[in-house]
Amino acid sequence: MQKLTILKIGGKLLDDDTQLGSALSAFANIAGAKILVHGGGKKGSEISRRLGIEPQMVEGRRITDAATLEVVTMVYAGLLNKAVVAKLQALGCNAIGLSGADGNAILAKKRGAGAIDYGFVGDVETVNNPLIISFLENNLIPVFSPITHDGNGQLLNTNADTIARMLAVSLSKNFEVKLLFCFEKNGVLLDPTDDDSVLPSLDTETYEQYRASGVISEGMVPKLDNAFAAKNGGVEEVWVCGVEGISGQKGTQILLQTEAILR
Amino acid sequence: MQKLTILKIGGKLLDDDTQLGSALSAFANIAGAKILVHGGGKKGSEISRRLGIEPQMVEGRRITDAATLEVVTMVYAGLLNKAVVAKLQALGCNAIGLSGADGNAILAKKRGAGAIDYGFVGDVETVNNPLIISFLENNLIPVFSPITHDGNGQLLNTNADTIARMLAVSLSKNFEVKLLFCFEKNGVLLDPTDDDSVLPSLDTETYEQYRASGVISEGMVPKLDNAFAAKNGGVEEVWVCGVEGISGQKGTQILLQTEAILR
Repeated sequence: MQKLTILKIGGKLLDDDTQLGSALSAFANIAGAKILVHGGGKKGSEISRRLGIEPQMVEGRRITDAATLEVVTMVYAGLLNKAVVAKLQALGCNAIGLSGADGNAILAKKRGAGAIDYGFVGDVETVNNPLIISFLENNLIPVFSPITHDGNGQLLNTNADTIARMLAVSLSKNFEVKLLFCFEKNGVLLDPTDDDSVLPSLDTETYEQYRASGVISEGMVPKLDNAFAAKNGGVEEVWVCGVEGISGQKGTQILLQTEAILR
Repeated sequence: MQKLTILKIGGKLLDDDTQLGSALSAFANIAGAKILVHGGGKKGSEISRRLGIEPQMVEGRRITDAATLEVVTMVYAGLLNKAVVAKLQALGCNAIGLSGADGNAILAKKRGAGAIDYGFVGDVETVNNPLIISFLENNLIPVFSPITHDGNGQLLNTNADTIARMLAVSLSKNFEVKLLFCFEKNGVLLDPTDDDSVLPSLDTETYEQYRASGVISEGMVPKLDNAFAAKNGGVEEVWVCGVEGISGQKGTQILLQTEAILR
């Protein structure tokens, strides 16, 4: 099967022009089929505050009311997405910016209100593999913003890690997928205060242990849950890494229990 | 040659949900290959003011400083473009939102500072016909926001009427193009206070006469200049119309002098 690299960039990396520039250069240099997924960074909250809309977060996730949906659509699908696409074009990478609504690339369902009503937040239902494959065949490099739609005219805010995972799982039917969750650290740290304490790999059992003992901190949990879900969903190779990990095998490789034992 | 309809929607039509909904329904019902181009409406200025950036206009054109470029990129390529795409998807129209940077669809050049420095404003240089043709062949309906790029990483604000015209002229090499400039009036009015005084057609000479005598008002001049430039550039059929003109032959048809004499 043909190889496909899916790179998700997010966190503080998006807010730092130098780091973002390095990440985009490394992405542009990846050989073969590739897809970029970007998160929102701090720009969403910053613009939101300037518009007089105070961001509401619960457990690290944004509550998306109608006014907030307008802001994230503007900032993620407009400002950030087009800035990234223009920069990649300048690097000779034929990027095409997409939300889930474009070409019906990613169909989602509004999350039902449970204990917490997240508002206009979407859970991914279907990835349009034929569309994405046709882009890749035409040498167009998809750049996804974390905005999806429900097919009935409603845009939805969707977690970028989840979008990267769902793309990777769905496209694993057609490609041998390498999925990289890239952020401002060099990988999963054993000691959050020591940037050099990167775990070379992490398997399910060790993850559960570190999680229980508090070694792996709150903020990393949703990212690692997505990383393990991707691996469990059949994605060939999954990494959590920093900018240096985009071009090489650096960072934390996510492994299933059996793989870890065999290594 | 295959027919292609290019519909530009703009002006107050974009700010009125009912009129916008009617325009998108009519667009979704157009048979055959089609492209939508949208302007910015009042939303750009509104968001700009809420962010504390006072819009600067000279002769009906926005001066685009760096802060304003961020706003128009957010509002045009993000908020408006994705809302339109999601609504068209709900109407069964497989829309894909694009800026000129996406797939290098429209390459522009920053306008040099003359008597007026318009800032980050782009004049269209090249339309990527092969890209647009490949979308149309794959039954993807391009929806253009009025943002372009210079190929060196710089996004540029570009007049939507001009984008529609340049697309129409360039694609006339491959298609028999019908270009519709659709706005809140039913066409070019002989009397701006009488909505029923629509001119059924307008040729170059009559336009010059009306312009000299002041019958055609300031605001219409850039739009009509684009319409005549399209017609002169080889576009088969050009109309200035209201929402009703999208489905029928209603509005003002733009004609060259010789055609008008032959009619």
